[in-house]
Amino acid sequence: MTDRTFKVAVLGASGYTGADFVRLASRHPRLEIAGLGANAKAGQNMSDIWPHFLPLRPLPVLQPAEEIDLEAMDVVVGCLPHGASAEILSRIEGPRIIDLSADFRLRSAETYADWYGGPHPAPALLPDAVYGLSEFARDRLPSARIAACPGCYPTAALLALLPGLMADMIAPRNISIMALSGVTGAGRAAKEANLFAEVAEAVHPYGLGGHRHMPEIEQELSAAARAAVTVSFVPHLIPMNRGELETITVELAPGRSAQELRGAMVDRYEDEPFVHVLPEGTAPATRMVRGSNHAVLNVFADRVPGRAIIVAAIDNLVKGSSGQALQNLNLMLGLPETMGLEQGPLFP
Amino acid sequence: MTDRTFKVAVLGASGYTGADFVRLASRHPRLEIAGLGANAKAGQNMSDIWPHFLPLRPLPVLQPAEEIDLEAMDVVVGCLPHGASAEILSRIEGPRIIDLSADFRLRSAETYADWYGGPHPAPALLPDAVYGLSEFARDRLPSARIAACPGCYPTAALLALLPGLMADMIAPRNISIMALSGVTGAGRAAKEANLFAEVAEAVHPYGLGGHRHMPEIEQELSAAARAAVTVSFVPHLIPMNRGELETITVELAPGRSAQELRGAMVDRYEDEPFVHVLPEGTAPATRMVRGSNHAVLNVFADRVPGRAIIVAAIDNLVKGSSGQALQNLNLMLGLPETMGLEQGPLFP
Amino acid sequence: MTDRTFKVAVLGASGYTGADFVRLASRHPRLEIAGLGANAKAGQNMSDIWPHFLPLRPLPVLQPAEEIDLEAMDVVVGCLPHGASAEILSRIEGPRIIDLSADFRLRSAETYADWYGGPHPAPALLPDAVYGLSEFARDRLPSARIAACPGCYPTAALLALLPGLMADMIAPRNISIMALSGVTGAGRAAKEANLFAEVAEAVHPYGLGGHRHMPEIEQELSAAARAAVTVSFVPHLIPMNRGELETITVELAPGRSAQELRGAMVDRYEDEPFVHVLPEGTAPATRMVRGSNHAVLNVFADRVPGRAIIVAAIDNLVKGSSGQALQNLNLMLGLPETMGLEQGPLFP
Amino acid sequence: MTDRTFKVAVLGASGYTGADFVRLASRHPRLEIAGLGANAKAGQNMSDIWPHFLPLRPLPVLQPAEEIDLEAMDVVVGCLPHGASAEILSRIEGPRIIDLSADFRLRSAETYADWYGGPHPAPALLPDAVYGLSEFARDRLPSARIAACPGCYPTAALLALLPGLMADMIAPRNISIMALSGVTGAGRAAKEANLFAEVAEAVHPYGLGGHRHMPEIEQELSAAARAAVTVSFVPHLIPMNRGELETITVELAPGRSAQELRGAMVDRYEDEPFVHVLPEGTAPATRMVRGSNHAVLNVFADRVPGRAIIVAAIDNLVKGSSGQALQNLNLMLGLPETMGLEQGPLFP
Repeated sequence: MTDRTFKVAVLGASGYTGADFVRLASRHPRLEIAGLGANAKAGQNMSDIWPHFLPLRPLPVLQPAEEIDLEAMDVVVGCLPHGASAEILSRIEGPRIIDLSADFRLRSAETYADWYGGPHPAPALLPDAVYGLSEFARDRLPSARIAACPGCYPTAALLALLPGLMADMIAPRNISIMALSGVTGAGRAAKEANLFAEVAEAVHPYGLGGHRHMPEIEQELSAAARAAVTVSFVPHLIPMNRGELETITVELAPGRSAQELRGAMVDRYEDEPFVHVLPEGTAPATRMVRGSNHAVLNVFADRVPGRAIIVAAIDNLVKGSSGQALQNLNLMLGLPETMGLEQGPLFP
Repeated sequence: MTDRTFKVAVLGASGYTGADFVRLASRHPRLEIAGLGANAKAGQNMSDIWPHFLPLRPLPVLQPAEEIDLEAMDVVVGCLPHGASAEILSRIEGPRIIDLSADFRLRSAETYADWYGGPHPAPALLPDAVYGLSEFARDRLPSARIAACPGCYPTAALLALLPGLMADMIAPRNISIMALSGVTGAGRAAKEANLFAEVAEAVHPYGLGGHRHMPEIEQELSAAARAAVTVSFVPHLIPMNRGELETITVELAPGRSAQELRGAMVDRYEDEPFVHVLPEGTAPATRMVRGSNHAVLNVFADRVPGRAIIVAAIDNLVKGSSGQALQNLNLMLGLPETMGLEQGPLFP
Repeated sequence: MTDRTFKVAVLGASGYTGADFVRLASRHPRLEIAGLGANAKAGQNMSDIWPHFLPLRPLPVLQPAEEIDLEAMDVVVGCLPHGASAEILSRIEGPRIIDLSADFRLRSAETYADWYGGPHPAPALLPDAVYGLSEFARDRLPSARIAACPGCYPTAALLALLPGLMADMIAPRNISIMALSGVTGAGRAAKEANLFAEVAEAVHPYGLGGHRHMPEIEQELSAAARAAVTVSFVPHLIPMNRGELETITVELAPGRSAQELRGAMVDRYEDEPFVHVLPEGTAPATRMVRGSNHAVLNVFADRVPGRAIIVAAIDNLVKGSSGQALQNLNLMLGLPETMGLEQGPLFP
Repeated sequence: MTDRTFKVAVLGASGYTGADFVRLASRHPRLEIAGLGANAKAGQNMSDIWPHFLPLRPLPVLQPAEEIDLEAMDVVVGCLPHGASAEILSRIEGPRIIDLSADFRLRSAETYADWYGGPHPAPALLPDAVYGLSEFARDRLPSARIAACPGCYPTAALLALLPGLMADMIAPRNISIMALSGVTGAGRAAKEANLFAEVAEAVHPYGLGGHRHMPEIEQELSAAARAAVTVSFVPHLIPMNRGELETITVELAPGRSAQELRGAMVDRYEDEPFVHVLPEGTAPATRMVRGSNHAVLNVFADRVPGRAIIVAAIDNLVKGSSGQALQNLNLMLGLPETMGLEQGPLFP
């Protein structure tokens, strides 16, 4: 690895996720943002549509993706809707790909078709993709062509559940995931449901019939448990911008205690720069990670014997999206994993 | 029933719950607010400490409870902390009692002692108390001396679970209650944890080791199920003033479907003025009930076979507290159940 | 006045203002909501688009305005955008009209054309309209055919300034109005600027080049001052649903004090059911009036000699819109002015 | 200047301001946080009282100020209440001092006594202090012993007004400053007025009788105008954590236009790293600067001829407090002014 700078293009830079990636990448010492893609807002500057970029260093003008010389990039970062993402990225030959859409997360094109309402746009590429939950993909990312960044809900759920399932401390059934997310998870599209007056001073669950993050969660949990796992999963929209909290009830494997499960998680994460098991008894809270790539976790004994409660908190836009993408990019390129992600949480 | 007016004293009128009861009662056509109790704020007017009372009709000055002629009242409404409540109320002889504290909710003085850190202050009164979940206590309240109003979390949980348990459609195990509450549930005491800057833009669970609303929930669920029921229960603090939502996962009784469970709930509640099962597929949201005594419920099939998801939303200060208290008062006195509670939800 | 019920049609019932009017009117003892107009949402029930109507008494299905028999109504209430409003309402012959749009507020069709980007759709009707700031239009409304309800900003500004100008205590120059409004003032249209994530945790001014409520304010101030008044007016969007606060700095007339100005306001409003000058030194706050038709005001000496600060707070959707409309309707029909508006503020 | 690291002690690290300074300083490449002072919370770790520090690099345990070897520091940063601050800091002999309290802001001990309710605790030190509005103190800070960091309101007001007054484009009278602040400005003390339920969904002005930031603003404006300036100043509390916006109406000097005033501000700030005049017509918003040391400004023509409107937005905790303190520290020590402050705004 030399000290050279890597050229990056970000497609879909006009959304919350894209803009948050640009926020982080623009301060990364080894990246040059060499292209910014957007459709409806092509021709504008980032600071026209995101005035908080006004004080920052100059960035390329937004262009339609097809006008950017993507082959001249070292890395292309896709912050596009599913479907559109695979379509554009499948035309790229040289650069490494960091994809934040759902298109390369599911290993099975059939499952994709079931959940995303149509055939996969580029099934031939699926074998080239690594599911990029950074802490569990560290050894495969350096050689991967595509990092498929997990959804925000799966990120928190998998960090909470994988160590216990891998260590056979959690039974692979009766897993119930209650998820609470800030509104930025829904993107910047102007929809009535996301208006301030609809969201503020209110809370409600959604996606009760089946949320698209479910198959992803089940795919990874099943692999860890070496058994088919089906989960209850109910996301809720709560009145805040950033942050995601999951409270997960699990059945412990026979003879196991919440205390042991917590110990296994402490062991698994003790050297992780971004994943932290809190001191015993301290409840994770989203304010502990706001604006940062950190995740905080903890385990509690449930009142029902034989069960435990795991709680995980992340910033849905950072560890749940743009930050994990940058972490994956660092891992892919052999850069220090924390580069550009050192900034601490912002509280209050 | 004559058309006479009933005299009411409200003890603890300087808290959120007390003030919300006064807000409702002051517009009730058959009640006269004849005494307002408060300690630290005695000598002040309600409008001094609650400026939104300024535009309303005059109210008595706040007094120490012991200076109010409680025996001259028809009803005494206690909005006091547990312990203090039973102590004061046990000295009253004539008036009917509506208690919003936890003191008369548990039928067992031993369970009370386990959860509330000391012996019950007035165990002899426990047999005189009816657990006042209005919709399930309607026949016992008219003759009761004490209505023990349920906690806010139990109110939503029990409305959601009782019909299914009574009809043997829900298995009396593996019940997992995730509860989300606005901040007013924590009262008006000046604590760091309830400061705006701690709560806004954030979410966290609390009471993971055991919340005091648990024994109450289990007492009533066990009675309905005719079997000991233990529940997982995790409350979360979310950044809003009013509102409470519970998402509850249950195991269906063998051979039962979510659809049948929903049907049983529709049947049970179809004549209720304040409890509404929403149209199929519509998720309850707190904004549907804000500021009102209404509860909205619905049932959904879970992705895990044999399980269902029940969602309930109330305003924690109204149906979860002051409104249900007034509903109970109406039932006790033989007044129309909805009197003083007709006002619709306030949205946005 | 007999005890008969009056038939009302509400046009534009699918917006925040329309729905808030229906919320109030549906509990008014002398009104029958006999028609509900909406375009894009015609064919739906109010409760489909406003789930908080689910618990309330049944309402007519939403229809296109042209399919409602408007001539069969006693009153037609227009909650439509400007332009569209005058166009529809000008076709009505029999019923009285309560208009919440800007179309009948300005007495001069030329001023209208300057500010609203085109000729007035029905200039011949302007002489039939009374500017419906209820407290100052009480004697003219009973005989008026059209009540032109003031904008939310003008309502607060005029309640704050009219008594002082009429009593020659305020100089008719150097009036600076800083206005803060909750987001519902912007309506329910799905615009990026009103998304939760854009509005929460943020504040900004808007309309700095000239807001359409200015000419209305200046028209009424000039009439009161018997001199042309031009104002500085800067509205700000703040992260809350309901509420509007105006902080107004004025130059006192020579020899006058803030104390005297406050006295004049106390005198003017002491018998008003909905307008309240707070005790000396108490700052108006929107939480004092949330969800109600009340306005709270106060006057303070400024640090700059010869100047005073007037503060006014209302709920922008109620006294600033739907509530004042109902108050005007009561006045028009000879009903008690407070009928249907008795409900107190909701705090917290 | 060598490349050595400077030792810093932060007194009052348990408040919002202190913690925010530690957040920034802990990532500053040339600072070592060698002491953290706190009283009530002495003996705890920062991460005990500020869980968002858990993921960050270890920090000294909190100690009473008197137990820290302050003389061993290069710089002592005071984040203490006024009065207490001067008392402790006046005992220090060697280290440079960055004070965030009000104690060294006013050049006149008499004015201090008038506004802060008692004699100044260390009047002899006043001549050693430089009023640290960084952009206007750059040449005096390198040799100063004490940097008195401005209050948050004065920071925004002075950035907005100084260029125009210095260039004689603004008349030194009739300046009206309306200020809107997030709640963190009130500190972390547990007071009823700062509870979530009191602040959320609400807005109100405060300090109408005279806010302690007034004399500071007037001192600096008078110096710039070379004439005594008295201002109208009304702060408002709005429901957000961070951010401060001021909308200021001014009288232009004879013959001057808002356009010219804007030009003078563009010229004055064009090389500033942290102060930005926005493109013509763009209204400053707090979301543009959240979490950063940036300030955004703009000027608009008022509807009243001869007047202009200046708008300024900052993050009250950063540019209004901890960030400006670090900027001053950099200037004092001859470090690059932006060191440790490069992080961009966080939006949403």
